[in-house]
Amino acid sequence: MRFIEKIHNLMIGLFGFIRRVVARHAARPDSLPDMPVKKDELPAPEAPVIVRQYEEHPSEAYMELKYRFRDIGRMAAIAETMGRDFLTAMPEGAWRARLGQIGFLHRRMHEDMTGDDMKRLFDRASDHLEKNAGDWDEWDQANLREMQEKYRLNAPLDAEMIEKRARLSYEGRRRHRDALANDDWPEARAFLSSVVDMNRQVAEKRCKTSGGNVLYQSLMAEYMPGISLTDVEDWFGETGKSFKSLLPKIMERQAAEAPPHDIRDFYPAKAQMWLNHALLEAIGFDFRRGGLYETGHNPVEGGTPDDTRLVIKNVDINDFMDSMKSALHEGGHGIYIQGLPRKTWKYQPVGQDMGAAVQESQALIIEMIIARTRDFFDFLSPRVEGLFHGMHNPVLGAENLHKIKTRVRPSALRKKADEVTYFFHVQHRFNLERDLIEGRLKVADLPEAWDAQMQDILGIRPETMREGCLQDVHWFVGKFGYFPSYAVGHMMAAQLFEKIRKDMPDIRSHIRAGDFQPVTSWLGQHIHAKGRLLPIGALVEQATGKALSPEALVRHIESRYLKTA
Amino acid sequence: MRFIEKIHNLMIGLFGFIRRVVARHAARPDSLPDMPVKKDELPAPEAPVIVRQYEEHPSEAYMELKYRFRDIGRMAAIAETMGRDFLTAMPEGAWRARLGQIGFLHRRMHEDMTGDDMKRLFDRASDHLEKNAGDWDEWDQANLREMQEKYRLNAPLDAEMIEKRARLSYEGRRRHRDALANDDWPEARAFLSSVVDMNRQVAEKRCKTSGGNVLYQSLMAEYMPGISLTDVEDWFGETGKSFKSLLPKIMERQAAEAPPHDIRDFYPAKAQMWLNHALLEAIGFDFRRGGLYETGHNPVEGGTPDDTRLVIKNVDINDFMDSMKSALHEGGHGIYIQGLPRKTWKYQPVGQDMGAAVQESQALIIEMIIARTRDFFDFLSPRVEGLFHGMHNPVLGAENLHKIKTRVRPSALRKKADEVTYFFHVQHRFNLERDLIEGRLKVADLPEAWDAQMQDILGIRPETMREGCLQDVHWFVGKFGYFPSYAVGHMMAAQLFEKIRKDMPDIRSHIRAGDFQPVTSWLGQHIHAKGRLLPIGALVEQATGKALSPEALVRHIESRYLKTA
Repeated sequence: MRFIEKIHNLMIGLFGFIRRVVARHAARPDSLPDMPVKKDELPAPEAPVIVRQYEEHPSEAYMELKYRFRDIGRMAAIAETMGRDFLTAMPEGAWRARLGQIGFLHRRMHEDMTGDDMKRLFDRASDHLEKNAGDWDEWDQANLREMQEKYRLNAPLDAEMIEKRARLSYEGRRRHRDALANDDWPEARAFLSSVVDMNRQVAEKRCKTSGGNVLYQSLMAEYMPGISLTDVEDWFGETGKSFKSLLPKIMERQAAEAPPHDIRDFYPAKAQMWLNHALLEAIGFDFRRGGLYETGHNPVEGGTPDDTRLVIKNVDINDFMDSMKSALHEGGHGIYIQGLPRKTWKYQPVGQDMGAAVQESQALIIEMIIARTRDFFDFLSPRVEGLFHGMHNPVLGAENLHKIKTRVRPSALRKKADEVTYFFHVQHRFNLERDLIEGRLKVADLPEAWDAQMQDILGIRPETMREGCLQDVHWFVGKFGYFPSYAVGHMMAAQLFEKIRKDMPDIRSHIRAGDFQPVTSWLGQHIHAKGRLLPIGALVEQATGKALSPEALVRHIESRYLKTA
Repeated sequence: MRFIEKIHNLMIGLFGFIRRVVARHAARPDSLPDMPVKKDELPAPEAPVIVRQYEEHPSEAYMELKYRFRDIGRMAAIAETMGRDFLTAMPEGAWRARLGQIGFLHRRMHEDMTGDDMKRLFDRASDHLEKNAGDWDEWDQANLREMQEKYRLNAPLDAEMIEKRARLSYEGRRRHRDALANDDWPEARAFLSSVVDMNRQVAEKRCKTSGGNVLYQSLMAEYMPGISLTDVEDWFGETGKSFKSLLPKIMERQAAEAPPHDIRDFYPAKAQMWLNHALLEAIGFDFRRGGLYETGHNPVEGGTPDDTRLVIKNVDINDFMDSMKSALHEGGHGIYIQGLPRKTWKYQPVGQDMGAAVQESQALIIEMIIARTRDFFDFLSPRVEGLFHGMHNPVLGAENLHKIKTRVRPSALRKKADEVTYFFHVQHRFNLERDLIEGRLKVADLPEAWDAQMQDILGIRPETMREGCLQDVHWFVGKFGYFPSYAVGHMMAAQLFEKIRKDMPDIRSHIRAGDFQPVTSWLGQHIHAKGRLLPIGALVEQATGKALSPEALVRHIESRYLKTA
């Protein structure tokens, strides 16, 4: 059997090549019928673009890998669209079939990515790189590195696991919705137990292959490649310490001020969606290649540079800033995705986004950093006075809106958290999920651990499961290792914005005028257009001149909440 | 090289099996996590269903084929959703990428369907059937037959061709839209020439493999499997002869009557869509597994039994019967698709619809046969009086609506044609496309041939290209051989309805009451639930007790247009 398998692999490797050389040519875009678009559909003329995805390269193995990853990338894009459709347009009765289809696509991607001869192709390409470094520019090198990284994450897993995980990422949204609606712990517990088990298996398989021993880190690697658990623990320790000392000072200071006027009123849904749409256009989101949708499900970031459909939770007709926050957050993700090097590296690993931590940095720099400045509200206030028919309504004044969005008060709900206590929520989830994966905490003990640690960190005890351990969708959809991305993203966002202010001293007046173009361009140039060219550390260092650290975040919090404007 | 390929094929065949046995188990639904739905999401309890797609069968080769065609069917369902999204929700800027994705899916399906060892699997399964006929019930036999039929249509073609055709089926919609908008023949000519060439190549390859010599018939086989060109020519001759003698009589009779009141008025779009929605519900379309959308593109039938999203052209606010007709037509397709044996044979070839001719019969029996009876308008009239605020408005009276929809007058446009002249339009397109494919007519000569034959058949000369050879989308999307389906479908629809009236003598009173359930059930039982169990001839014969022929259609036209009610 062993022997047969070896011969099999050899034959596949040798002769598969012949077949693929034929298939490859069938699949090249230049062999497709030439179908020029009408002039008015063409984008503005640009400098000629070299489509590096198809550019010839002296390493045959690398060329072959590029073709394979093009098809894998295409399948991923198809799965994205199927998922977006799942959340926005699919008839309810199709959901079971759809889970099967999404699972199937991921199984196929996995089969393609971990096929018998992939290792050999990687070896040959790496060998070529070693011997002919001059043929490989930094993008090619990074592309090969990212291909191998994808392989390393996936090869240890089997098709069944991949299929289950993919189904779960949508199935879990329904489970979570039901658990929330019914505050139903027993059912959630059984489900979460199976999800934790599955993720532990994934982590164990990865560690067994890599020789690593930190289960949690092997999951985190999907969201923050190259960042170690120790890094995160150090950062969290440092940030936690600073924030713990800042929090009482901020609360004390705010207690001495008059509280803001209550935002709650009636804000028509259509007007809110117009505002969200208009703000996204202002930050540079291209609606020709994207859209904005509401969903009854939990929102989700994603899409591709050609088709970036943002999904936000249904608007709250009593609080327009609820959906606005969501739209700005998803908009930050959206301009990142749309700014990826789609013309040159579309579908190739190096052309993708850098994962959840960098994704969150792009969402949070818009939503939390920029859209909570007083300057932003100076721009917003007169517009919402007009939009919501409240001329000189003090609720809609810049000062009041700013006060609402910078009000710091511990709450049981992460989604309602302010910018300061948000960190503690993330730290709290991080501790729990790490312990769940490392086997130090059982799902059955989660509610108690959740509440106790929440009490410990924020002095709050949730009154219901809904306000406690059922509140977040992440674990239901199998995302273990994602939570730290929020805090690391926040750090990164603060560090990037510090540099932006240094590079463009007049940036505040731009924001006050509703002109976000300088920010978007800067982010586009330093982050979005880089794709996965650089590891996270190098990306941040190249953009800001400094190593990634929580220092800028601490300075940002001090400056926003403890200094006079 | 030859030798190497042979060894390669052998090895693939032998060892691929091992791999697939593993992959197969990974992909079985019972190995997926058990995720029961909430009770209120469950459909009403039914008799237990044997999922025959996964049912064990003594022929190993057949089991393997079932797994492969399950995945091919899944990809087809994914491509359907991607196509539906293309027409209804996709941002415009994504279209190029989307064409690539749809083309890719079809290439993959083709690779899977025509893989090196498929022929061997078919041989083994056929051999098993021959020697162990008792193990094969009629469904298994039909499933194998339909697998082979799919193989026969696809194996002669290469991946490049398949990819081009798939792209074209969406790209052509845009081309047609532009050609219509600009009445632009030179550009349309170049494009249509390449489409005709491609279809001729497809036909040639098929004929070369099968030994056939009728190019056109090999294309028609996609839409009317098992029907020969001679059959169609005979039917068309017979129908044409009868209709030619009936047409002047009908027109003479109608000329003696007062013409109907003009329908044109203002009918709000939302009210129209409510009506369309309500009528679809009445005919039994299940909105839990489907939806109704408008599009700026040409409408298209399709979808899967789990997810049947009907698409109609944007409503005409001056004529509610325009979108109503479209909705009823697509609704006929829709209930057919939803009624396929999805629980037992989902994704398997035998579980699919019977192709365009039967599809059109199901659309036309609703739209043309039933929804143009006086009984239907007796039901509709009081509702539209209320909906469109026209109490006792003579325009909305049953008699007037009926008169409008049974008015026979030759026109240049197929889509505006009445039930009688519609046939001549179809015959006209059939003649032209057959000659284009058989090489007897050049695309450059198409406008002249179109106009001359239109003059000859209907006595009308189109004034613009838009009203002439640019009017239909079919050729632009590569559908050569589709047109006869409309006429054959019409024949079939009349024959089915004749039997329905015989089986249920009180059917008219049901229609008058807006109760379409008896019709839908009858069609469900005799047509929809059969999938591809029977060839078209046998399907019609089993349902009606008679061979398929134009006789019932001629009787129907005589009765509707020349007898007193």
